[in-house]
Amino acid sequence: MSVHLARGTRDHLPTAMRHRLAVMDRLRDVFERHGFAPLQTPAIERIETLLGKYGDEGSKLIFKILKRGKGAETGQCDLALRYDLTVPLARVVAMNPSLRMPFKRWQMAPVWRAERPGRGRFREFVQCDIDIIGAGSIAAEAEVMSTLADAYDSLGLADWRLRLNDRRLLRALAESVGAGDRETDLLVAVDKLDKVGRDGVDKELRERGFDDDAISGVWKVLEVDTTDRSAVLEHLRQTLPGDDVGTAVDDLTELVELAVALGVPEDRIVVDPTLARGLDYYTGPVFEVELTEGGIGSVGGGGRYDGLIGIFGKRSVPAVGFAVGLERLLVVLEERGQLPADGDGVDVCVTVFDAERRLDSARATATLRSAGLSADLVLQPTKLGKQFKHANAIGARWVVTIGPDEAAAGTWALKHLETGDKVVLPPAEAIAHIRLRSDG
Amino acid sequence: MSVHLARGTRDHLPTAMRHRLAVMDRLRDVFERHGFAPLQTPAIERIETLLGKYGDEGSKLIFKILKRGKGAETGQCDLALRYDLTVPLARVVAMNPSLRMPFKRWQMAPVWRAERPGRGRFREFVQCDIDIIGAGSIAAEAEVMSTLADAYDSLGLADWRLRLNDRRLLRALAESVGAGDRETDLLVAVDKLDKVGRDGVDKELRERGFDDDAISGVWKVLEVDTTDRSAVLEHLRQTLPGDDVGTAVDDLTELVELAVALGVPEDRIVVDPTLARGLDYYTGPVFEVELTEGGIGSVGGGGRYDGLIGIFGKRSVPAVGFAVGLERLLVVLEERGQLPADGDGVDVCVTVFDAERRLDSARATATLRSAGLSADLVLQPTKLGKQFKHANAIGARWVVTIGPDEAAAGTWALKHLETGDKVVLPPAEAIAHIRLRSDG
Repeated sequence: MSVHLARGTRDHLPTAMRHRLAVMDRLRDVFERHGFAPLQTPAIERIETLLGKYGDEGSKLIFKILKRGKGAETGQCDLALRYDLTVPLARVVAMNPSLRMPFKRWQMAPVWRAERPGRGRFREFVQCDIDIIGAGSIAAEAEVMSTLADAYDSLGLADWRLRLNDRRLLRALAESVGAGDRETDLLVAVDKLDKVGRDGVDKELRERGFDDDAISGVWKVLEVDTTDRSAVLEHLRQTLPGDDVGTAVDDLTELVELAVALGVPEDRIVVDPTLARGLDYYTGPVFEVELTEGGIGSVGGGGRYDGLIGIFGKRSVPAVGFAVGLERLLVVLEERGQLPADGDGVDVCVTVFDAERRLDSARATATLRSAGLSADLVLQPTKLGKQFKHANAIGARWVVTIGPDEAAAGTWALKHLETGDKVVLPPAEAIAHIRLRSDG
Repeated sequence: MSVHLARGTRDHLPTAMRHRLAVMDRLRDVFERHGFAPLQTPAIERIETLLGKYGDEGSKLIFKILKRGKGAETGQCDLALRYDLTVPLARVVAMNPSLRMPFKRWQMAPVWRAERPGRGRFREFVQCDIDIIGAGSIAAEAEVMSTLADAYDSLGLADWRLRLNDRRLLRALAESVGAGDRETDLLVAVDKLDKVGRDGVDKELRERGFDDDAISGVWKVLEVDTTDRSAVLEHLRQTLPGDDVGTAVDDLTELVELAVALGVPEDRIVVDPTLARGLDYYTGPVFEVELTEGGIGSVGGGGRYDGLIGIFGKRSVPAVGFAVGLERLLVVLEERGQLPADGDGVDVCVTVFDAERRLDSARATATLRSAGLSADLVLQPTKLGKQFKHANAIGARWVVTIGPDEAAAGTWALKHLETGDKVVLPPAEAIAHIRLRSDG
């Protein structure tokens, strides 16, 4: 009988799962330290909650659930798997008017998309979002930026940097080249700069109906040395028309100042007028985190999106969000040998010398666990040599053996697997010894 | 525009979610301390993996996912939402022949069942399973029992007890009353003893074709004072025929001895010959944890099921499992006021005295977070009184305020919200003060 996973899905076996959990634990710690609160929404939503929220392309990628009973034969669907964490958040905000604003929440949970699976692209994957709902102030962006700074730092990533731009500037740019009605075309083309280079963007702009004048107008604004942040902002203020531009430049200036006060290292922030972020729904500052080493590119992004959270309600609700690219980060951390080692394997494997000593070994196991250590008792005792192999295989750091001598003396024989060091000690001293060596 | 949750699903808002996470964290700690490893399987499985594994009733309750593209119009389904964590585990074992046995894994994850929603019954709920795969020895049952003992203890539940029986005894009972071919009928009827009492069981047995002789034969075995465990086991050995009975009684005796050595309090274990556990697939010892106070009944159960894990492979694979009734426990812990308080609210709310002091407050927030405290900066400063209300609302324990005097002196004004105590201190001392008070 042959058996398979659903296409584009994965099992996370213990070693991989421990690493996933360790990474998610660190992110959760950071989010909580920054005052974000956890929210969980169901994986299944009413189909009308999701349809029409992700454009035509998105709607095709939604997994739909067949009705039970009547309607099943004709393929009617009433439910669907969530496609992201943002539309469900909008639903929660609409359904809970008593939620205190600003509402800061984190959520790490799987989402499902019926994309063609490929290298690093899955149909079930975990999204990791923080959002601040109900705060129109630029302080919300600063808070989100300080949170993501701590998040990437907590994973030991030394080469992250944050690119920062503002949708209002891109809108002004579109208007300034006479393409105010084609802002999205401009965004889509400029968004590809990293991948296709300037010539590629030019080609795309031309295909989307921008003439040579418009294109040279675009580059007059976008082509700027990004090393001096103030100079970039001044350049934008000078070259772009409209009141919104002044406000946007002032906002970005204030945002950087506040983010730095909140602990974001100043040299990590780059104002980059070419940053577009693909999604249509951003309305103000947008930002993206990339790793500069190894050509990895974006590992997270977000921005202000004041239009989306209100879709299920009567009023518009300001919002700033950021999504950590968790799945990609796990790949990068593995490639770099930087996966957190928390909780790899167990502390102690307790062998069973022979049938007569089984209860002694069981009691030793209980004693170790009461002391807060993780311990695995050999369940099907074979030769002692094989039991030591088992201990190695499960990643145990120590082995405790109780033979007739130790049983008579009330001691444990303790072996450190990595060094081979052996010592025979009474239980309390053995536990102290294990603790001492584990801290070192 | 009206918007709803899918029927039978829930949002877990921050306070509830924090409690869920705290309970799950404790269980995870216990499982890891006992050497169980985490596994995650996808929520969606190929439909043929699940169909036919849960009986006719179960199959009707499986949520089926419509094919994308061709086949969608005619209602064809190729995927389904997982119905439990056990069949996916069997798939993992079949697909990963190099998994080291015994394989001890824990998994806490949602499952989906299209049941009629009702009080405490949901269509999406979290199952919390531990299983030991590949160990035929009774030591596996003992390990599972010691794990569940620590699990319920870790949640502060003082009134749990473990009922223990063996399917081999129930099979012998069916045979002894001439109903060897109707073992399931006997199980189903006896399983309802707690709910319908002895008369109800009699009625059900009669409806299922048991005559008066058979029924009195059943009670001759089952009716026994369970306070003396050895006496119960001896009674079963005497009144039931067959070699299996002797083996089962010996196994239960050894199991209790080993479980006690592994730390299970002896007085929590009750051998109860009326314990059936509804599921067909158990083959040896079965056990159930119940809370004795408040008529709550079962909060978890499991046993040996040597037939199921091998379904996708060629050979049979021994297995022992236990499912903690997580959703029910959360209800009970809330009713008892015993929900763990880990991580309720944030440690400190940092107010913003006025626009001029905003950067000072931001820096103080960063300092608090660097010290490992959770801190929330007021994002949209209004009157200070309102900011203190906000601090109360988010469950902050402390408020830090930096006015002109504090800014000039390089100090923070610190207020303990519960007692109203105020103190003005330099940052390092303020942090030490907060830590001291939080430990007490």
